[in-house]
Amino acid sequence: MLKVGVIGFGYWGPNIVRNFNALKDSEVTRVCDLNQASITRIHECYRHITTTSDYRDITGSPDIDIVAVVTPVFTHYEIARAALLNGKHVFVEKPFTSTVAEAIDLIEIADKKGLKIMVDHTLLFTGSVRKIKELIDNKELGNIYYYDSTRINLGLFQHDVNVIWDLAPHDLSIMDYIIEDRPIAITANGVDHFKRGLEDVAYITIYFENNIIAHFNMNWLSPVKMRTTVIGGDKKMLIWNDLAADEKIKIYDRGVNIESKEGVYKLLVDYRSGDIWTPKIDMTEALKLEAEYMIDCIYNNITPINDGNAGLSVIRILEASLLSIKNNGKMVNL
Amino acid sequence: MLKVGVIGFGYWGPNIVRNFNALKDSEVTRVCDLNQASITRIHECYRHITTTSDYRDITGSPDIDIVAVVTPVFTHYEIARAALLNGKHVFVEKPFTSTVAEAIDLIEIADKKGLKIMVDHTLLFTGSVRKIKELIDNKELGNIYYYDSTRINLGLFQHDVNVIWDLAPHDLSIMDYIIEDRPIAITANGVDHFKRGLEDVAYITIYFENNIIAHFNMNWLSPVKMRTTVIGGDKKMLIWNDLAADEKIKIYDRGVNIESKEGVYKLLVDYRSGDIWTPKIDMTEALKLEAEYMIDCIYNNITPINDGNAGLSVIRILEASLLSIKNNGKMVNL
Amino acid sequence: MLKVGVIGFGYWGPNIVRNFNALKDSEVTRVCDLNQASITRIHECYRHITTTSDYRDITGSPDIDIVAVVTPVFTHYEIARAALLNGKHVFVEKPFTSTVAEAIDLIEIADKKGLKIMVDHTLLFTGSVRKIKELIDNKELGNIYYYDSTRINLGLFQHDVNVIWDLAPHDLSIMDYIIEDRPIAITANGVDHFKRGLEDVAYITIYFENNIIAHFNMNWLSPVKMRTTVIGGDKKMLIWNDLAADEKIKIYDRGVNIESKEGVYKLLVDYRSGDIWTPKIDMTEALKLEAEYMIDCIYNNITPINDGNAGLSVIRILEASLLSIKNNGKMVNL
Amino acid sequence: MLKVGVIGFGYWGPNIVRNFNALKDSEVTRVCDLNQASITRIHECYRHITTTSDYRDITGSPDIDIVAVVTPVFTHYEIARAALLNGKHVFVEKPFTSTVAEAIDLIEIADKKGLKIMVDHTLLFTGSVRKIKELIDNKELGNIYYYDSTRINLGLFQHDVNVIWDLAPHDLSIMDYIIEDRPIAITANGVDHFKRGLEDVAYITIYFENNIIAHFNMNWLSPVKMRTTVIGGDKKMLIWNDLAADEKIKIYDRGVNIESKEGVYKLLVDYRSGDIWTPKIDMTEALKLEAEYMIDCIYNNITPINDGNAGLSVIRILEASLLSIKNNGKMVNL
Repeated sequence: MLKVGVIGFGYWGPNIVRNFNALKDSEVTRVCDLNQASITRIHECYRHITTTSDYRDITGSPDIDIVAVVTPVFTHYEIARAALLNGKHVFVEKPFTSTVAEAIDLIEIADKKGLKIMVDHTLLFTGSVRKIKELIDNKELGNIYYYDSTRINLGLFQHDVNVIWDLAPHDLSIMDYIIEDRPIAITANGVDHFKRGLEDVAYITIYFENNIIAHFNMNWLSPVKMRTTVIGGDKKMLIWNDLAADEKIKIYDRGVNIESKEGVYKLLVDYRSGDIWTPKIDMTEALKLEAEYMIDCIYNNITPINDGNAGLSVIRILEASLLSIKNNGKMVNL
Repeated sequence: MLKVGVIGFGYWGPNIVRNFNALKDSEVTRVCDLNQASITRIHECYRHITTTSDYRDITGSPDIDIVAVVTPVFTHYEIARAALLNGKHVFVEKPFTSTVAEAIDLIEIADKKGLKIMVDHTLLFTGSVRKIKELIDNKELGNIYYYDSTRINLGLFQHDVNVIWDLAPHDLSIMDYIIEDRPIAITANGVDHFKRGLEDVAYITIYFENNIIAHFNMNWLSPVKMRTTVIGGDKKMLIWNDLAADEKIKIYDRGVNIESKEGVYKLLVDYRSGDIWTPKIDMTEALKLEAEYMIDCIYNNITPINDGNAGLSVIRILEASLLSIKNNGKMVNL
Repeated sequence: MLKVGVIGFGYWGPNIVRNFNALKDSEVTRVCDLNQASITRIHECYRHITTTSDYRDITGSPDIDIVAVVTPVFTHYEIARAALLNGKHVFVEKPFTSTVAEAIDLIEIADKKGLKIMVDHTLLFTGSVRKIKELIDNKELGNIYYYDSTRINLGLFQHDVNVIWDLAPHDLSIMDYIIEDRPIAITANGVDHFKRGLEDVAYITIYFENNIIAHFNMNWLSPVKMRTTVIGGDKKMLIWNDLAADEKIKIYDRGVNIESKEGVYKLLVDYRSGDIWTPKIDMTEALKLEAEYMIDCIYNNITPINDGNAGLSVIRILEASLLSIKNNGKMVNL
Repeated sequence: MLKVGVIGFGYWGPNIVRNFNALKDSEVTRVCDLNQASITRIHECYRHITTTSDYRDITGSPDIDIVAVVTPVFTHYEIARAALLNGKHVFVEKPFTSTVAEAIDLIEIADKKGLKIMVDHTLLFTGSVRKIKELIDNKELGNIYYYDSTRINLGLFQHDVNVIWDLAPHDLSIMDYIIEDRPIAITANGVDHFKRGLEDVAYITIYFENNIIAHFNMNWLSPVKMRTTVIGGDKKMLIWNDLAADEKIKIYDRGVNIESKEGVYKLLVDYRSGDIWTPKIDMTEALKLEAEYMIDCIYNNITPINDGNAGLSVIRILEASLLSIKNNGKMVNL
């Protein structure tokens, strides 16, 4: 039975506590939060859990095996570092850290100490993303042409990060997971409408080797919520609408074969338009699977798909996006 | 009665002929096409129209008042120039010309000769765009935050222009028409998956004074067709889905009021979510209204909303997009 | 502070307990269930609530003011009767009773004793139905032509009632609430595909004075879930899609004006097709409002909109539907 | 080359003329219409076609092989009879005739004379219905539970028939085509809101042997147009949305297995929810295929799927629906 200490019990923390607590091989024993109301809520629901307002009571406790860091991003490094140095495995909310340097430092400490880092890229554990991964691994889509994501809604404005740091980690972690090729460069554009120094509408384009292109449309000022990803391959194409109640993923047997003969008018294009298929998606709660997987990785010494390096890949792109946006969309090599 | 000569009777030419021919104040008298099958089709449907395979029979004819140029873009300049020099008004398919220099030259000739240029920005005459223009002019949306367009489909691959030159002119002409502020810079990114030297997936971001941002997602490799534009304002927001049968425009009484007090945690955000309104859209054929308007502009010496300068605005952006894309998304000032 | 005893803690009971318990003027003090697992769940979540497996411990308790009956329909009469005879107000799950006679008996007892009956027609308290009621009361739709409901899904098969008794009470209670005119006759048709004596696909048509017609399509064997109601009036028309995330109600400024002159070919029809309007819907939990309203009705001696007579109206139609369906869709007067 | 005479050139007639005229084995030689504007339109488009205002110039002409009857339903019998008696094959608009007796008489004449009757059940020749037929014939859906059709819109009010005679023939002809079992009884309900003696909102329920049930919802007063059919089988289920641009048919691998053991609480229900599949639909114009098929049936002496008996099946149900509706939804045996 692994003992879990959870730091941060605001919006997402209660889900972390609930899931680690419900597993047969783990148990949440202590929770930290600065907010008295949060502390009260814990006591109401979980009589066996003790609480504290000092995270060091968790990172330094000899009775805890896993520290879950569910705090604002700028605090991740300090807390996770303390936990690792005290020999704890860490489960860190995304985005992993505020900088690439911080991420590298945490990874090195964990490696040296033989500890696991898991970054909470929850969406990787949804039925939808697991199905997409399976389709791509099985070459159902063929070679990937592009990955095009729209993640827009009205608010919630964050006070410490821009819309890219808020919304892109979801899609970047998925892109990183399902596309084997490596991103080589990024451009980012955006606007800060409220003069806060934080963009509320932004766009990222990522170039890969092999001519794959990825694009991300992020917006805190959209009248409607959209969570749509289009993935085009040379065999098939796919649309994932995460807000659909019933048909989240559609696979289109559509494509184009092009032969470009000499001369501008010798273009031979053959369009293919076949059936559409909507696979059944497993609806198990993603966080439940992720928590189970964490335990499994520790017990069986498995490197998580969402380990520190996966977290670092996302931070590398986020950091590059800040540089690009400050330089008017200049391309930044990764 | 104005006499119209139409050059090009391929995909779009027949619509031009039909509409100018049906007006009470204009009549198509001659059509030019290089393709014998097109010539045969004309004779079948329009007994009074004479045909030719040499465009100079139209641009040089003393009996023709308006020359409609419905040919590939790289031929627009030569043909429109010949028509203007012979004292004809011209109606030119979009995009207006291949270069900014060509567009400026045509505008200067027309100005000097007191002739009208109308660029066929057809969508400006749809009920949807006229309604959007009316809403924005009446300040229904308030100050504009962003203009975000998605225009994607499977094919049709063009053999002489990239996806931006093919699809963006529609949206750029609309953006130019409905947003009063002036674009100041552009970045473009894209990929050519078939090694033809022509991008098939591309993205444009345009910056305006006053922090407006515009974005265009264009794709010839999408499994589904989408024609969606989201326009956010500080009072209301709007979604235009041009493919919807019945509810093309929805206006959302939604928005956000933000007060950013000192300190990162002092953000006061107030979200507003009210009614949605779907105005009735006039379904008159856009090209019919546009052709009528051309006649009206000539008779009453009105400067068309889609005159040479409107065409030039679009070409300026298209030309800049080529420069930006060649320079890895570098920002190009307009 | 009114004390509430809840009988039945299966699928819906926990919601009843949670809502009555959260109000400032009521408190759930005792819960009855035959199932030991349910009893355990209560103790886990609500330390102050006592439990029993004998409903008479609640209906006969001197400390209880309101008895909530959340049990299978065939038990409602016995339990509610016991509660009323002991001077308790009752909150009864829908459908109210198994027969018209039972409903009338309960109403008479309550009247005699000055007690309130509230039938749990929860949907009446949704933002959607309250908005529809308001629109119809304000004559926004004009005179009603028809009420057409589709409520279909895959399962859940009930073991003691047919698909009409399972699904129709929702819509019948709404129809009864929003249409002022009185139903005068009903026909019902349906099929039992599994030879259980209980129809799984069924249709009801209800005739009103003034030529209003209502129709209900119910199906436990549909591949998809639909919850759609169309209401046509002579001024406007309305579609309520209860499954829509964001635009549950749309009001169409559409209609038809007909003058039927003498002779078959003298029909003058004028179609009107105007704007569509999607009002904002209040998303407060319906059951919370209903529970509050129960307390308010008791304290201020208000007759609930969903009182015993409202419950009786629904049972009258359900009972008539059984008669009609047994007689091959014969019209049954109400 | 078969010569076709077309009687009636109003709304649908031009499509009949265009299609029979475009085939290589048939040619429209004469058209009849009472309206001078229609006659003018024919001369504009088809120089070789002669016209008349007396249908007997067509039914009695020695040069005509096929007579297409595209007139109001109450005239079908007289015209088709004249054509058959003169040895012409007939193509008759739906509904076939005004009464069962008329239909039987025409069938007998055609049989005696060895002539073909084809009733214009156009939808049978759409890619969608051909695909549904193929799926059902291949037992993809298994045994059919129900057929549920919604065909509603705003107008067009007919002046001589009610909404059932206007809209139901489409769906009845499809039902008759794809369901092998025979309907045994029907009930119909409806309301005439404009006191014209013609229902504008109506519902039909049809019972089959083997517990299949079919239901039809027809409405001229709906704010929106719907053309949706749900077909449930014990293996799979299907939804056909004829208005969908891209995904007209969806096949759901969903269903339910029920074992009803002794006792009300012994119900064992197993729900199955698998993939969804959207087959590609052939988009060839249905009327083109139907016209070709007519020629083929004549040349090769094939009995059309939409012969006089198919037309009669529909008329039998329509006639029974009138009887049922006049008798308050009384069940009428077929």
